[in-house]
Amino acid sequence: MPVLAIDIGGTKARFGIVTRFGKILHSAQFAIEPEAKLESVFSQIALQLRQAKIRNFPAVGIACAGLVHASSRKLLFSPNLNWRNVPLADIAEKVFRAHARIENDVNAAALGEHRFGAGKGTKNLIAIFVGTGIGGGIVSEGRLIRGAHGISAEIGHMILRPGGNLCACGRRGCFESYAGGKYIVNNFHRLGGDTSLTMPSEVYLAAKKGDSAAKKVWQDALDALSVLCVNLTTALDTEVIVLGGGVIGHCPGIEREIARRVKSYYRGGWRYCPKIVKSTLGADAALLGAAFSAMEGIENRVFEGNKQ
Amino acid sequence: MPVLAIDIGGTKARFGIVTRFGKILHSAQFAIEPEAKLESVFSQIALQLRQAKIRNFPAVGIACAGLVHASSRKLLFSPNLNWRNVPLADIAEKVFRAHARIENDVNAAALGEHRFGAGKGTKNLIAIFVGTGIGGGIVSEGRLIRGAHGISAEIGHMILRPGGNLCACGRRGCFESYAGGKYIVNNFHRLGGDTSLTMPSEVYLAAKKGDSAAKKVWQDALDALSVLCVNLTTALDTEVIVLGGGVIGHCPGIEREIARRVKSYYRGGWRYCPKIVKSTLGADAALLGAAFSAMEGIENRVFEGNKQ
Repeated sequence: MPVLAIDIGGTKARFGIVTRFGKILHSAQFAIEPEAKLESVFSQIALQLRQAKIRNFPAVGIACAGLVHASSRKLLFSPNLNWRNVPLADIAEKVFRAHARIENDVNAAALGEHRFGAGKGTKNLIAIFVGTGIGGGIVSEGRLIRGAHGISAEIGHMILRPGGNLCACGRRGCFESYAGGKYIVNNFHRLGGDTSLTMPSEVYLAAKKGDSAAKKVWQDALDALSVLCVNLTTALDTEVIVLGGGVIGHCPGIEREIARRVKSYYRGGWRYCPKIVKSTLGADAALLGAAFSAMEGIENRVFEGNKQ
Repeated sequence: MPVLAIDIGGTKARFGIVTRFGKILHSAQFAIEPEAKLESVFSQIALQLRQAKIRNFPAVGIACAGLVHASSRKLLFSPNLNWRNVPLADIAEKVFRAHARIENDVNAAALGEHRFGAGKGTKNLIAIFVGTGIGGGIVSEGRLIRGAHGISAEIGHMILRPGGNLCACGRRGCFESYAGGKYIVNNFHRLGGDTSLTMPSEVYLAAKKGDSAAKKVWQDALDALSVLCVNLTTALDTEVIVLGGGVIGHCPGIEREIARRVKSYYRGGWRYCPKIVKSTLGADAALLGAAFSAMEGIENRVFEGNKQ
């Protein structure tokens, strides 16, 4: 039976009814007002569902940007919406009268790619999303790794170069500070690159055309992304790495450039080079992952908090 | 009910009867002949158990050095013993007439520390063992991460410095090539250090006494181990890092030096700095982890391959 999936981003909410094969039967989205409360977001969804005569879904899966603690079923903090310590799953169960399960949105996107997207069929997958920054999600033996506090896979802030570039997170030398979209552009301008280019994809194109600052910056970014793939695979023995996010989507051929570099680390005694593939779900990944989390919850009866 | 645990290293085998509280009731060890077959090792253990009148254990857990594929219950390759594609668990079930479960020895040691040792009470732990090289094991949400091919947690061969020191694995710049015991000594000699010092702990002492080459080499090693802790925790949201192995054991205070460095990465918005502790099980870790794996196997009824 199809489930309800909700993806709450920093500025908008999207919801959909999703079948167990990952087909989105009905979906809609709306902007979230800056001061909106979670309850009003849910009420709006419930209203739209009633208007569309959609009822009788057994579970709801919610992907939410921010610090999500899946096991206590709470959203601990959402920086953009300024929600703190919200019992997100409990509220969802009251409003929608269905079992609820919550995930961090990037983790949910990894789960979506694992179950319905580019990682379908593999049990060991890492998703790396390169946009303004770098986020990710880790699926190991078919299970999402959520970590002790719900903040696993902060992979953009693993350290590539101790003492290197200053990252907005406060650390120095993070992978993100070499390969996050914002940093690619900033590093390019810092090297004297054309300041009229403001998108990583524009710098990518400039590099292809031979611009030396652009080449240097992208060389660093591709090296960083490759080492990130190698390090995560070496730690977790992963089969497939799914690359997604705006920077990956807008730079054609980038996944092949990364795959080639990763391969160079798998020579001699090193077997099991991971397969590097592009995300196939795009903006649907988190919604579909939330749906899968809800389905998995029903199957494994993990809705301990549910009172119904 | 106590289980039988066996730890098969490169040159010796050890076995013990282990209670569910991690108490080793009876144990013994013997050297493995260079050309020995697995069956003869098991027969020897069975004989010693009969002589000690030990019977009626419901399960046997086996930790083995090498490439262990836990889900197919096979030892794929053991470099020192030159065993290849051995159905280790099936053979153990025949010989001992009990359910069998196998683990890579370093993974088993991580499991041991998680269940009975320095990581007791935490569900999210990484064990880092620094000896000649660097190995490890990852426990996430109470489960050992085994990976797609049974070679997870090859953490010593994650890359610290792309293009850096050549490692015996063929890669350049591995963490191991800066902080593995063998490399600490080699790097010290390469910097003109006293060649009569051949143990990492001797170089550690020289650094404490102000020897400049020793200080440089140990600075690099401690920085490498700290970044390794930070990177693994950032990827996996880990609560506790257990440090073990000969180098950790023989260099007093090393865990405090690493903890201090790790802490420096957890400032500002970074919360949840992992606790850094020393292994408490020492050489018993793998045996106890193998025992726990067997107990867990009974509980979860994972002995699919068992024909009895």
